Amino acid sequence: MASTSSLTLSQALFSREISRHASNSSSDRVPFSIPTFSGLKSTKPPRLSGSAHRPRTAHCRRQIVRAAVAETLGTTAETALVEKSVNTIRFLAIDAVEKANSGHPGLPMGCAPMGHILYDEIMKYNPKNPYWFNRDRFVLSAGHGCMLQYALLHLAGYDSVREEDLKSFRQWGSRTPGHPENFETPGVEVTTGPLGQGIANAVGLALAEKHLAARFNKPDSEIVDHYTYVILGDGCQMEGIANEACSLAGHWGLGKLIAFYDDNHISIDGDTEIAFTESVDTRFEGLGWHVIWVKNGNTGYDEIRAAIQEAKAVKDKPTMIKVTTTIGYGSPNKANSYSVHGSALGAKEVEATRSNLAWPYEPFHVPEDVQKHWSRHIPQGADLEAEWNAKFAEYEKKYAEEAAELKSIISGELPAGWEDALPKYTPENPGDATRNLSQQCLNALAKVLPGFLGGSADLASSNMTLLKMYGDFQKNTPEERNVRFGVREHGMGAICNGIALHSPGFIPYCATFFVFTDYMRAAMRISALSEAGVIYVMTHDSIGLGEDGPTHQPIEHLASFRAMPNILMFRPADGNETAGAYKVAVVNRKRPSIMALSRQKLPQLPGTSIEGVEKGGYIISDNSSGNKPDVILIGTGSELEIAAQAGEELRKEGKAVRVVSFVSWELFDEQSDAYKESVLPEAVSARVSIEAGSTFGWGKIVGSKGKSIGIDRFGASAPAGKIYKEFGITVEAVVAAARELS
Amino acid sequence: MASTSSLTLSQALFSREISRHASNSSSDRVPFSIPTFSGLKSTKPPRLSGSAHRPRTAHCRRQIVRAAVAETLGTTAETALVEKSVNTIRFLAIDAVEKANSGHPGLPMGCAPMGHILYDEIMKYNPKNPYWFNRDRFVLSAGHGCMLQYALLHLAGYDSVREEDLKSFRQWGSRTPGHPENFETPGVEVTTGPLGQGIANAVGLALAEKHLAARFNKPDSEIVDHYTYVILGDGCQMEGIANEACSLAGHWGLGKLIAFYDDNHISIDGDTEIAFTESVDTRFEGLGWHVIWVKNGNTGYDEIRAAIQEAKAVKDKPTMIKVTTTIGYGSPNKANSYSVHGSALGAKEVEATRSNLAWPYEPFHVPEDVQKHWSRHIPQGADLEAEWNAKFAEYEKKYAEEAAELKSIISGELPAGWEDALPKYTPENPGDATRNLSQQCLNALAKVLPGFLGGSADLASSNMTLLKMYGDFQKNTPEERNVRFGVREHGMGAICNGIALHSPGFIPYCATFFVFTDYMRAAMRISALSEAGVIYVMTHDSIGLGEDGPTHQPIEHLASFRAMPNILMFRPADGNETAGAYKVAVVNRKRPSIMALSRQKLPQLPGTSIEGVEKGGYIISDNSSGNKPDVILIGTGSELEIAAQAGEELRKEGKAVRVVSFVSWELFDEQSDAYKESVLPEAVSARVSIEAGSTFGWGKIVGSKGKSIGIDRFGASAPAGKIYKEFGITVEAVVAAARELS
Repeated sequence: MASTSSLTLSQALFSREISRHASNSSSDRVPFSIPTFSGLKSTKPPRLSGSAHRPRTAHCRRQIVRAAVAETLGTTAETALVEKSVNTIRFLAIDAVEKANSGHPGLPMGCAPMGHILYDEIMKYNPKNPYWFNRDRFVLSAGHGCMLQYALLHLAGYDSVREEDLKSFRQWGSRTPGHPENFETPGVEVTTGPLGQGIANAVGLALAEKHLAARFNKPDSEIVDHYTYVILGDGCQMEGIANEACSLAGHWGLGKLIAFYDDNHISIDGDTEIAFTESVDTRFEGLGWHVIWVKNGNTGYDEIRAAIQEAKAVKDKPTMIKVTTTIGYGSPNKANSYSVHGSALGAKEVEATRSNLAWPYEPFHVPEDVQKHWSRHIPQGADLEAEWNAKFAEYEKKYAEEAAELKSIISGELPAGWEDALPKYTPENPGDATRNLSQQCLNALAKVLPGFLGGSADLASSNMTLLKMYGDFQKNTPEERNVRFGVREHGMGAICNGIALHSPGFIPYCATFFVFTDYMRAAMRISALSEAGVIYVMTHDSIGLGEDGPTHQPIEHLASFRAMPNILMFRPADGNETAGAYKVAVVNRKRPSIMALSRQKLPQLPGTSIEGVEKGGYIISDNSSGNKPDVILIGTGSELEIAAQAGEELRKEGKAVRVVSFVSWELFDEQSDAYKESVLPEAVSARVSIEAGSTFGWGKIVGSKGKSIGIDRFGASAPAGKIYKEFGITVEAVVAAARELS
Repeated sequence: MASTSSLTLSQALFSREISRHASNSSSDRVPFSIPTFSGLKSTKPPRLSGSAHRPRTAHCRRQIVRAAVAETLGTTAETALVEKSVNTIRFLAIDAVEKANSGHPGLPMGCAPMGHILYDEIMKYNPKNPYWFNRDRFVLSAGHGCMLQYALLHLAGYDSVREEDLKSFRQWGSRTPGHPENFETPGVEVTTGPLGQGIANAVGLALAEKHLAARFNKPDSEIVDHYTYVILGDGCQMEGIANEACSLAGHWGLGKLIAFYDDNHISIDGDTEIAFTESVDTRFEGLGWHVIWVKNGNTGYDEIRAAIQEAKAVKDKPTMIKVTTTIGYGSPNKANSYSVHGSALGAKEVEATRSNLAWPYEPFHVPEDVQKHWSRHIPQGADLEAEWNAKFAEYEKKYAEEAAELKSIISGELPAGWEDALPKYTPENPGDATRNLSQQCLNALAKVLPGFLGGSADLASSNMTLLKMYGDFQKNTPEERNVRFGVREHGMGAICNGIALHSPGFIPYCATFFVFTDYMRAAMRISALSEAGVIYVMTHDSIGLGEDGPTHQPIEHLASFRAMPNILMFRPADGNETAGAYKVAVVNRKRPSIMALSRQKLPQLPGTSIEGVEKGGYIISDNSSGNKPDVILIGTGSELEIAAQAGEELRKEGKAVRVVSFVSWELFDEQSDAYKESVLPEAVSARVSIEAGSTFGWGKIVGSKGKSIGIDRFGASAPAGKIYKEFGITVEAVVAAARELS
């Protein structure tokens, strides 16, 4: 098939050149927290026509994947400079890994050509403001190859990766950790390394763009308009999460998602022949993607360029560009072998590679002409942002309401008084399952928070997660906010990470049964690590779900998340506590939250409150004085009612009983010692906890002399009430334990 | 395309009839534990020619999926009986769900035809010995539809599912729980319900068969020869784990794996159009499967039969038979809607369905002619087993050595003295990473345990899991024992569950980095729940892995598994402890084990022992007397060395110090109170624990007055020694804490 690429290198270089003289650079480092609102102040006039990004007419088709074919380049001088830039990237990676004596040189050496083309010719970004809203997003799903991205950020002029950063690759406190971390390195969008996560994050980023574009773009103003690019390798392709997310990307028709599959046939165990012989092309056609094959990813620059243009032209499908490369390209003795994947080349092989690629420079050297060539990105990026800011100013004039909403999403600034929307309850309100109470919160919040959206992994009617005033986010209705993830928990979590990290004002939630957090735990951990404030709506949180039995009944899950850093594990007991949990969750934009919610109906308890939840653990009832109860009963979620009832029983016997809700251990842990002492006085060792889950971890709360009532075995299939009774999660058990202790 | 099916219903019925008079039935219930060696005693002469299972010539091809086409049946009377049997299955499911007022009638109603054909016409099994080795395996991956399987087991004559069991569906203590549980119901091979697990288990079962067949079959004796059948639904298809496992099944060419995809277009949230529009056919072609489409799964019995015959004829690929069905077939008002998926039909709709399908019987009634028709399976099953036993007796005569090995795998009886193979160490032995010491154990055990096999998720050279005396299990070398899972942790775990549950003597192990247990946790939990004694070899178990950084450094993982029921979490400190952990793991065939192993070199410590490990926690050094040390230092894994060094320091100061290894909390928990007191005397509250992981849970061990040194934040990217120091995981920290307490 003849090429239809309309853009040659010369044109690309030229289109960049026209704005080269403009400069808005600042040598100040970008602060390491996401700014509240990035760069709307500059009002420079638009410079770039954006023609480089104008897509061709779409030529959608379903046929056997064919190779991309490129036009002939006008000049060889330009190609020589590109080659030099590509080798600069290769050697920055080689040198940094060599100095650290640790890392993965193979991928950067193989992917340097596509990396160069993306960052130098294709992507829109502003190096001096990595958080500029309308930038193209790039995700290195094969995160171990992070030196590729660091080298590119360095060449592009990002302050986060200077020469000294490259030289401290993988060292304590450096901005160039062993895998890309968004919270360490501005310019890195998401945290990758665990394979398959990045491509799923990219689906989330592309979803976010499609959603915002549909909501906010106007016929006269395309205010939201960027691509999401991703590089993934064989390892990512093997992971189930990638298939889940890519199936959704195809379903949603995310045309501005363009993935480069680094098809190098090598993984850690050697040739992919030993474990990975499927036809990835065919699979992706089945998933509804447009697939292109670049046969020569090592030096076929025009092939790569043509493929990108073709991908952009296909607007109704995401595109997978399979780029066949040689891992460790340039290394005469280690290329195309697993030995170049995850270790330094070694001094001898570095020399051999220098000689092989005719690279005469010192380690970490960026040749002057390469530096000069890349230097245009600073002024150009400033222009891009200024142009967009001007456009936004126009937009704001015409569409004030939409602009305010979009601004809230871009900045993360929550609308004033949003928390007033949360429902409040009294004990007189009818009892309800916390999953239903959660739905009231979700619907209340979606009305007041512009960036609030989400859905369930095919359990919307069980998790109670539908936003009633919105329709489904679908291919042709992307402005809607109910996301239908299908039975794809892992992909769902990682997609939500992508949405959360697209813009600070996005508050994505996602849902399944609590026990199936086991399917998505890797994504949830990355929420916590990468400061993505996703809200995990996890219903059916105990044996209380009844007949579905032990495969569906969480036991160890509360403990397993309480042990995880930087995540809030909530187990609310009723309406007020559910509202309180949502309030904290919304505020915590850099810390994800998990809501463990009941399937079964629970009463609205006296003494619960939003304010109590904010402290994590608090007293809901007490008939003691002088902070000296005879016994403290501690419960969470559906068992707080049991603790409260046991308290009543014991008080009838004349005991001074304090009942404590321990809705979030993490929040309680953050309170002052004085507050903690006021709830759990050290002198009172008679403490009984009750929770329909593992007792693991409760030892610290109840102390050496206390008792924990819980479940340290798997569940059972029977009506819920029967299981509670058989497992001894009862008022009687609490009363008996309390009597023994006090 | 014309049909090539060579087997009509009449023939199928006839081939079953010929052995009908033989009977070896027993009305005794099969015991609920897997027998040590099932049924080799009977030596009845062979009866069945097995012609029903003789495959046609293979017609392998790659083309657009086409519909299966069947021959015309000879008689309609037979079809009427089949239809009646199919409706019996439907109504047993309807009635049981109705009585329980809980459950999933939709799938059984739609899948009854394929279920009937499988259990009545195709599968080899012995209802009176569900553990007969050479049986065909069936997995209901869409486990929520378990009433389908219970109805089939009931009709087939399994003692585990009698009428009273159907009537106590989903009730406390019943053998018919809400999802299929292998440990509750003989005849159920694996525990399913969490979607996607079952199809991956089935890949493991088929792998096991292919492996054993290649190792043990002889030109004159095909002693291992069975199929693995599986029914999976849309939900399973969406799960990433299914894609992982199916990619491997295609890679391995598991020709005797035949999967029925219940293509009913309905999932819990409604029509699959809302989230699942990929081409499953195309994807599976990409995965290297043979794909057949049965367009009429509701009444197209011959289509289904023809598809199975075609699938059997394709010997070098697994087959996916897409069977288009109507969920809730027969229900006039609820069929083809999500409302029939997961709830009882309700009395009115049950009546409407009875009327619609012309079903005049009382609830739970099996019509006499249907009962009579199915009754042949008891004698026939006995004959099948007797035939095989006779064959095995012959085999044993000719191939004594192979027979002994196979017998060990079938029975689970470990060869005498196997544990002598485990390596032993003294402090004089050179230090080594426990991942390397683990490899010594793996290689030692593989020599003496016939059913020992496994591999890594593309990290063999990092996890150190290669068995040096064996080659790779591959499509054309299935007799080998190194399994290459690729980067597919979740599929790997579930495949190992399938292998473990294929035969009691299989001891599968699998490996990745400890942190990536997050990818496979759902499968690991099912190992624990379903009593599959998989060994999880999890290396790089802490910040000690260094530069790869926080995405690769486990923190909360030890705690998260210690909280999980029925799983052994080991963190061995050196060679003896690693050997001890493997000894316990091998013995625990109904409880999986996790080995947390170091990347970094560790010394062989004085005082460690295999016997100590068997107790979970034990003293490795002590200079106190009268069980009254001044302080107890407790460590695990790589930090036991730190505890030991701190002990030395403190002893220099004159302190009486006990150093305890806490290698497995679960095993310690099982010891007598006297033993526990001898290690951790209640009177000694000065206790310091050190572990390079979350302190969560340690409160119970060190007590209210003790101190836990650990890591309650995410890790960092730097050389390991630097992180240890910065995070305070040091001898100095232990010494300081101990001084404060004692």
